[in-house]
Amino acid sequence: MKTVAVRNIERADAGVVEGLAEYGVATVHEAQGRFGLLKPYMRPIYSGARIAGSAVTVLVHPGDNWMLHVAIELCQPGDILVVGLSADNSDGMFGDLLATSAQAQGVQGLVIDAGVRDVLDLTVMNFPVWSRAISARGTVKATPGSVNVPVVCAGCSVNPGDVVVADDDGVCVVPRASAATALAASKKRADNEEATRQRLAAGEAGLDIYNMREKLLAAGLEYVD
Amino acid sequence: MKTVAVRNIERADAGVVEGLAEYGVATVHEAQGRFGLLKPYMRPIYSGARIAGSAVTVLVHPGDNWMLHVAIELCQPGDILVVGLSADNSDGMFGDLLATSAQAQGVQGLVIDAGVRDVLDLTVMNFPVWSRAISARGTVKATPGSVNVPVVCAGCSVNPGDVVVADDDGVCVVPRASAATALAASKKRADNEEATRQRLAAGEAGLDIYNMREKLLAAGLEYVD
Amino acid sequence: MKTVAVRNIERADAGVVEGLAEYGVATVHEAQGRFGLLKPYMRPIYSGARIAGSAVTVLVHPGDNWMLHVAIELCQPGDILVVGLSADNSDGMFGDLLATSAQAQGVQGLVIDAGVRDVLDLTVMNFPVWSRAISARGTVKATPGSVNVPVVCAGCSVNPGDVVVADDDGVCVVPRASAATALAASKKRADNEEATRQRLAAGEAGLDIYNMREKLLAAGLEYVD
Amino acid sequence: MKTVAVRNIERADAGVVEGLAEYGVATVHEAQGRFGLLKPYMRPIYSGARIAGSAVTVLVHPGDNWMLHVAIELCQPGDILVVGLSADNSDGMFGDLLATSAQAQGVQGLVIDAGVRDVLDLTVMNFPVWSRAISARGTVKATPGSVNVPVVCAGCSVNPGDVVVADDDGVCVVPRASAATALAASKKRADNEEATRQRLAAGEAGLDIYNMREKLLAAGLEYVD
Amino acid sequence: MKTVAVRNIERADAGVVEGLAEYGVATVHEAQGRFGLLKPYMRPIYSGARIAGSAVTVLVHPGDNWMLHVAIELCQPGDILVVGLSADNSDGMFGDLLATSAQAQGVQGLVIDAGVRDVLDLTVMNFPVWSRAISARGTVKATPGSVNVPVVCAGCSVNPGDVVVADDDGVCVVPRASAATALAASKKRADNEEATRQRLAAGEAGLDIYNMREKLLAAGLEYVD
Amino acid sequence: MKTVAVRNIERADAGVVEGLAEYGVATVHEAQGRFGLLKPYMRPIYSGARIAGSAVTVLVHPGDNWMLHVAIELCQPGDILVVGLSADNSDGMFGDLLATSAQAQGVQGLVIDAGVRDVLDLTVMNFPVWSRAISARGTVKATPGSVNVPVVCAGCSVNPGDVVVADDDGVCVVPRASAATALAASKKRADNEEATRQRLAAGEAGLDIYNMREKLLAAGLEYVD
Repeated sequence: MKTVAVRNIERADAGVVEGLAEYGVATVHEAQGRFGLLKPYMRPIYSGARIAGSAVTVLVHPGDNWMLHVAIELCQPGDILVVGLSADNSDGMFGDLLATSAQAQGVQGLVIDAGVRDVLDLTVMNFPVWSRAISARGTVKATPGSVNVPVVCAGCSVNPGDVVVADDDGVCVVPRASAATALAASKKRADNEEATRQRLAAGEAGLDIYNMREKLLAAGLEYVD
Repeated sequence: MKTVAVRNIERADAGVVEGLAEYGVATVHEAQGRFGLLKPYMRPIYSGARIAGSAVTVLVHPGDNWMLHVAIELCQPGDILVVGLSADNSDGMFGDLLATSAQAQGVQGLVIDAGVRDVLDLTVMNFPVWSRAISARGTVKATPGSVNVPVVCAGCSVNPGDVVVADDDGVCVVPRASAATALAASKKRADNEEATRQRLAAGEAGLDIYNMREKLLAAGLEYVD
Repeated sequence: MKTVAVRNIERADAGVVEGLAEYGVATVHEAQGRFGLLKPYMRPIYSGARIAGSAVTVLVHPGDNWMLHVAIELCQPGDILVVGLSADNSDGMFGDLLATSAQAQGVQGLVIDAGVRDVLDLTVMNFPVWSRAISARGTVKATPGSVNVPVVCAGCSVNPGDVVVADDDGVCVVPRASAATALAASKKRADNEEATRQRLAAGEAGLDIYNMREKLLAAGLEYVD
Repeated sequence: MKTVAVRNIERADAGVVEGLAEYGVATVHEAQGRFGLLKPYMRPIYSGARIAGSAVTVLVHPGDNWMLHVAIELCQPGDILVVGLSADNSDGMFGDLLATSAQAQGVQGLVIDAGVRDVLDLTVMNFPVWSRAISARGTVKATPGSVNVPVVCAGCSVNPGDVVVADDDGVCVVPRASAATALAASKKRADNEEATRQRLAAGEAGLDIYNMREKLLAAGLEYVD
Repeated sequence: MKTVAVRNIERADAGVVEGLAEYGVATVHEAQGRFGLLKPYMRPIYSGARIAGSAVTVLVHPGDNWMLHVAIELCQPGDILVVGLSADNSDGMFGDLLATSAQAQGVQGLVIDAGVRDVLDLTVMNFPVWSRAISARGTVKATPGSVNVPVVCAGCSVNPGDVVVADDDGVCVVPRASAATALAASKKRADNEEATRQRLAAGEAGLDIYNMREKLLAAGLEYVD
Repeated sequence: MKTVAVRNIERADAGVVEGLAEYGVATVHEAQGRFGLLKPYMRPIYSGARIAGSAVTVLVHPGDNWMLHVAIELCQPGDILVVGLSADNSDGMFGDLLATSAQAQGVQGLVIDAGVRDVLDLTVMNFPVWSRAISARGTVKATPGSVNVPVVCAGCSVNPGDVVVADDDGVCVVPRASAATALAASKKRADNEEATRQRLAAGEAGLDIYNMREKLLAAGLEYVD
């Protein structure tokens, strides 16, 4: 397999990206039809961060973080690094030095299907990471991978320039071409939910709001005392 | 399998339930003879909550949260929703809307052998959840399950009306019929522990307090220098 | 297998131990050549603790914490209990009573390849634990194990008196005989990193600082637009 | 928790049990409405066995097989031992000696949510076992459990006298009271399937046989070239 | 997400596909530069099968096998069904009826990131399957997915028409466009290996054959007695 | 960490090793007091092999099998390669070429806490392997490890020259110094078991043979009808 680093990628509109960040993972994932979610083993190293940005994708090999150095140089402010692995690995491929370098480039955060270390430092630096593991085990720089090629990260296909949304609920990928549509659908969904939320808070039954009573009986549900 | 929703269940005495909450999972589990503990993969979405309540049990299918709507309507203030699955699943079956509805009914919290989403909102709402996963992946409403039937949740059998105790150590189920006995045993255990705690804090050896020295030698332990 | 409790072990120099605590797991692990790291499933029960101490090792059997009582009595101030299991187990072998006893002896913390309970109490007591699980399931005192014999803990061999370093990144074991060397190597590494950190923060590319550009091309990396 | 051994249990009709064995797990599970299946980590130690029998249930603790001796004595010819654990455990609780004893009682096989050993001997003896693990690690006889009480085995509730069906596809539990109904439903399903099988083998499309074409289009499926 | 079924896909040259089958997974994977391997949890239901064929890809949802019926109709003789899931699932989505239908179409085998059932029947039918689980749990036909779109299967991206090679070592995907190159590289590798095999069998040291002695010493290896 | 290859190790008496092979893993493990068992995820690639031999230990890094070449040259007829990893890894580090080389040296088999490939060839060659995974993913030769140093393999400490016993029940390690004792204890245990087996086969209850009735009642067991 050739190893390449693609310098220029197309990114989604900055306003659209920002809008998706506001709605967050759960809403965006539903709004775009329930696809693009990374597996739930991807967890944030600290809670409370909610970001969206254009994916700079990185394909690396287990125990080798060489390509992350290549990728950081190709990032623009607001980008999110998305790292896929060629095989399962939990090594700590990224720590405070790489985070310092990434932050200097304006990178917002990291999504990595491997491990991360220096998590207390990263927390203090306010550099959010979603990873499959926390591990102090460092890596070598021996085998090149690729930057800005399609990767599989945590079970999900990610293309360079796709919009990545990440918060405490996980990580969702929105294809660049449909980002504006996803934003509009998210807005619509959120607006609807707000109205529903108020009715539910007032004690109205979901069964009534969603018109479920008849359907449940039709599906065979029996109420007994 | 018939799908039923049982409207009326017997609940344990409110004072007993409250008492069990005070002692917490580790004490109650020991006091009732070390049974009724859900598997340790069930973790709280935020730390610090300690609750006890009567179980409203829900049997649902993977990727389908329809029955949660049915269950919430049948809850009374103080109840805890306990959700068992017909097969392993980590989808996010419960989020801020269902939590709003549940809180309006007075539900204290949720124990679910699946995923949950909107965890930051739930934290702010002070609605505690113990789950096997956090996942933004939403669910359909296609196949009815049952409410208030016996379920298996995280490896443990739970009957409607059983008392559920949950805190940072996990989740324990106390059969309704033996809840008062469990409370008395918990009190006795906690009282004993307090006395022991003071002796240990003063530097007395556990080996002496628990009279273990002879038993250890009898069991073959050898001290060497 | 004979079950023994070894009373006297050699410990590393206190100043060396303290120095290793300052550098933390990620730096020490790298500095000693990337060995001695426990598997990443070992997680702290609360974040922010960073300790180092001499290992008092304990070999126990699943569901049986008898030997922990024996071990605590043999601890000296600053020691860290390291518990290996004869088979996989997640039971809660250690709780607030044992922590009270350990703290009275000056024990700094616990590393256990099993479960722990009363985690909220332990947090309040400021007694850090790294474990494979949190579980309220208590244990019996039926089968003796050993204290201060070599154990395997979370995939890593630990000898009594080895220095254990633990923080949010995990747990690393430094052989007693090479602790001073590891400290010197850690200092050297940290000093180098500080200089690099400043250059990275100023926006200099890691590819230049680490002299990677030619090596990457030699390894076959191609840049494309 | 009291530990009891219940001597007499009701068993399903022998002819019904035999009939269920013929249809096998996949058919019976479907026929009774898709419940009662043990988790798929339960695997046979050798392939090709297909049995059904009345469950003699056993509740045991990790690392302790004492109750299996009690249970075997209470078995009748054709019974199947079903062993639930009070906590996760993979120890080898059952080997060729217990199998010899069980076979002398006429026991057909074993379903155990733990480990098994002497698997080559058991294969030669033609004594089938479905287990979560194969492990040579033996067990003690220290803590009594119970025989013929309801247990949870591999995520499924099993009552004494329920019919257990097991083959290469896994293990399914049929409540005793509905065993005859399940048999009838299995027969009906198998008869239907035979007709369908012949049409499919002749090359007819499932989409036509099952009348799915319109439903798929209605659900939104688009064919493109 | 739109759900589509693509009728016509390009397939690799039949001779090339056949050639890849002869070399098998381990050789082809190495020969094409160590990518395209599905995660090792994908295991064959019986040993000894070695196949290669063009991928007809299927995207399905947990617990729903509707799209498999659509896919089978679009298969040509020699094809291999490759099923990716939108979320983790071990349900038995495929059994003897679907296998009968697939075999009638000339399908060679199935690669599915979910469960399979009727495994004894499939073995007798000589219809090989590589899956993540064996499970009798059947599925519904409620939510359409897609056929012949790019899918992620067991961590690997698969495009319709890619060549799938599968044997006892696992499953490897060869992009259609580079199938001929991969075949040539496989032949070259296998030829080289044959010569090496004979020298190794004659007792020559790998260290000499591969010229490793100096490199090992240069890398720091020390021989001691 | 220095990387060394130790040329000369002491091995156990050949007759003792042979004797241990005859008794097999379950008996030897019990006879030496229930220690030395590798975790049960270590499974044979084919069933029916039962071997014992002196351990030539190898420490390797994830994705790198360089040291296996070094180790094979240092093996003597009858040895068993035991490979420990510095971090979790399932790559296929060993295939038919290395097996050819190992067999030429008289190596009996391989125990590896990683993956293996060419499993069909190895089966035909009658070269047994116990591994944590089967994977076609090959490895590089970049970082030296060590040969004949103490390693941790699948949770168990192994020293060079220890006797390794392996069969369908798993893998057990017997320290060289106590191999003769373990053999004598195994013989005694097997002799006892033979007598018991005959009594059990004749229908005598284990409860009587092992004198358990009174102890069970004393432990609180109650018989009910």
